[in-house]
Amino acid sequence: MQISRSPLARPFPEMPAIAGVTLRVARARYKEWDRCDLTFAELAEGTAAAGVFTKSACASSEVELGREAVKQGRARALIVNAGNSNAFTGYRGREAVEAIQAQVSAALGCGVDEVFVSSTGVIGVPLPKDKARAGIEAALVAEPCSWEDATNAIGTTDTFAKGAGASAMVGDTRVELAGIIKGSGMIAPDMATMLGYIFTDADVAPAFLQEALERANAATFSCITVDGDTSTSDTVMAFATAKAGNARITGWDSPGADAFAAALADVCRNLAQLVVRDGEGAAKFITIRVSGAVSDDSARRVGLSIANSPLVKTAIAGEDANWGRVVMAVGKAGEPADRDTLSIAFGGIWTAKNGLPVEGYDEAPVAAHLKGEEIDIAVDLGLGDGRAAVWTCDLTHGYIAINADYRS
Amino acid sequence: MQISRSPLARPFPEMPAIAGVTLRVARARYKEWDRCDLTFAELAEGTAAAGVFTKSACASSEVELGREAVKQGRARALIVNAGNSNAFTGYRGREAVEAIQAQVSAALGCGVDEVFVSSTGVIGVPLPKDKARAGIEAALVAEPCSWEDATNAIGTTDTFAKGAGASAMVGDTRVELAGIIKGSGMIAPDMATMLGYIFTDADVAPAFLQEALERANAATFSCITVDGDTSTSDTVMAFATAKAGNARITGWDSPGADAFAAALADVCRNLAQLVVRDGEGAAKFITIRVSGAVSDDSARRVGLSIANSPLVKTAIAGEDANWGRVVMAVGKAGEPADRDTLSIAFGGIWTAKNGLPVEGYDEAPVAAHLKGEEIDIAVDLGLGDGRAAVWTCDLTHGYIAINADYRS
Repeated sequence: MQISRSPLARPFPEMPAIAGVTLRVARARYKEWDRCDLTFAELAEGTAAAGVFTKSACASSEVELGREAVKQGRARALIVNAGNSNAFTGYRGREAVEAIQAQVSAALGCGVDEVFVSSTGVIGVPLPKDKARAGIEAALVAEPCSWEDATNAIGTTDTFAKGAGASAMVGDTRVELAGIIKGSGMIAPDMATMLGYIFTDADVAPAFLQEALERANAATFSCITVDGDTSTSDTVMAFATAKAGNARITGWDSPGADAFAAALADVCRNLAQLVVRDGEGAAKFITIRVSGAVSDDSARRVGLSIANSPLVKTAIAGEDANWGRVVMAVGKAGEPADRDTLSIAFGGIWTAKNGLPVEGYDEAPVAAHLKGEEIDIAVDLGLGDGRAAVWTCDLTHGYIAINADYRS
Repeated sequence: MQISRSPLARPFPEMPAIAGVTLRVARARYKEWDRCDLTFAELAEGTAAAGVFTKSACASSEVELGREAVKQGRARALIVNAGNSNAFTGYRGREAVEAIQAQVSAALGCGVDEVFVSSTGVIGVPLPKDKARAGIEAALVAEPCSWEDATNAIGTTDTFAKGAGASAMVGDTRVELAGIIKGSGMIAPDMATMLGYIFTDADVAPAFLQEALERANAATFSCITVDGDTSTSDTVMAFATAKAGNARITGWDSPGADAFAAALADVCRNLAQLVVRDGEGAAKFITIRVSGAVSDDSARRVGLSIANSPLVKTAIAGEDANWGRVVMAVGKAGEPADRDTLSIAFGGIWTAKNGLPVEGYDEAPVAAHLKGEEIDIAVDLGLGDGRAAVWTCDLTHGYIAINADYRS
């Protein structure tokens, strides 16, 4: 099946080189294809590592081992396999990951727990150890490659390469950040895996890097949804090589900590939104802003209830300002809400206020807004100060076509 | 938009008359249509009432008032309005319901809290009080009608009339039950409201009727899903007229209590499954059986996570035995699960056992099963004795067509 480039795609951005990060790609041929499908990021000694992983109770061995290894906070290498997710493969899957860690740690002279592995693609088939070994051997002697090459190599069903860069001033030192991500949805039997990696030359203590990543994740990757489904392999990691020479950031009181965290969050938000833009069948990018909730977390859950509602997503696909479906989605969220203080706007025009339809609101700008590609829905619960933004896409025939009409 | 009869439809069954229940219908003309859209069920003095209502935080006035009134346990009348849900209409909506209660209580000489009202249809428009009043006046002098006529009158976007009957022996007395329901999904801007009513001639104490209904609801209406969306008006009520002359059932120790509760649950299960059979765009009826969970409740939540997964539902639409998507849905349920004890079957054939694909399982019967209209998915978590069954339908182009392609 040929899937065409998403109409919401963005061009790959200019991204800074990150001192201490060397990218290489190779052909492991995990599937019958002629493309690079193994990515090897070599990281300088002293690189700090942080990671957030899927909450799935059926996580892959890569996730289990990565979640454990990241606790020591150091990384020397990241290997990403595309074409085989190695999920639901039991002890044989685990052996494959351990073999990669052993091979790379021997080549680089580092600990096995400094080697992080991700895999994405077919599930239920153990990652072939021989292909991985040959792929890594090839990568070790390959020429360094660009961000875009590496991004293409980690992709599976993505219809465009997704990257985002940022910089921040830490004291007098400018630090750079570069992030890449894969994820769109899935084609049977692939999982809808989201794999994201952010690299920076900043000097950041591992504990603070972890804290900043978790905080950024909560407001970005945890606020997007395509279909509410969660992969067994979802992973976002951050690596800080300390090559910029800034005074080390160890906590929120360190100079530049806020600026660095804001830049990290920016990269995460951009990457998260790019995943939504590549949502299967997506024709419209939807931003849902919830205010007036009892807490930010409650606002986020209300937003995700709206964003995951098939009835809301099909209404937007149909360019219908159907605030009734938004009311329904607010009501089912399981969060504090009051029908009689609830207000809803499309494209900045309030169509319902304080529990009642707005009589005679101007429908023309609402209709024009809904014909566009970027849709804004605002919901005010009228209860408190909690707020959140979440992002999703519409639900179209394209989603059904990708996921039902074609067999694995 | 013309919606054709669901391919999964069932003929309306023979149903017993229930002594003490008189059904009448009338044309209130809540919409521009020429059909009966007001249903009036008159109930004999001494009728016990029980009800379960939507958990939506944005429930309609009908639900708010019904939830309160049912606590006194008696009913003399049920009025169902089709075409206008009266949801999200503030104090004016509440006044409309109270006007109906006042009119009917005056006509029957009963308390206002013995008059139950449900409404389904357009939201955001207060139920027109004059149309309701005229409709009730017409209904009060109309000839009694059949179950099927009443079922058609409560329907909105339903593509077929849904009813189920049962009987039970209470001591030496045979008691009859008859249930009707409306619900399928929604057409903008209707809500996907499910309204179900079960009538019986049994003599049942209100508290026990409530308990039996809640228990039946937990295993039936709470175990179905079409798209995971919850209406602001969902209501299921039971009415027991006491005309059968059985020794009153007051608790589980009363003779015939188990038989009555089983018959009630049977009716509820049949009605619930009929709603799924009328799911928007449904082409396949899916039964998901979960076993080996840590509790029945946990099993139900895992089942609903599978049943609500767009990726699972599109896989079934595509006749693809995609157990990887089932693994994903188990993993994201937030319930105890272990990848390495998880087993999955389609049509009775295990395709994955104890966390690994079953090598060389017979694909032919699985493929044949998936081509049928009735799909069985079994999931064993391998952890405990908890079990549950849930029912859903596939996710097809028909769902998108109904909900996105046509404007309200």
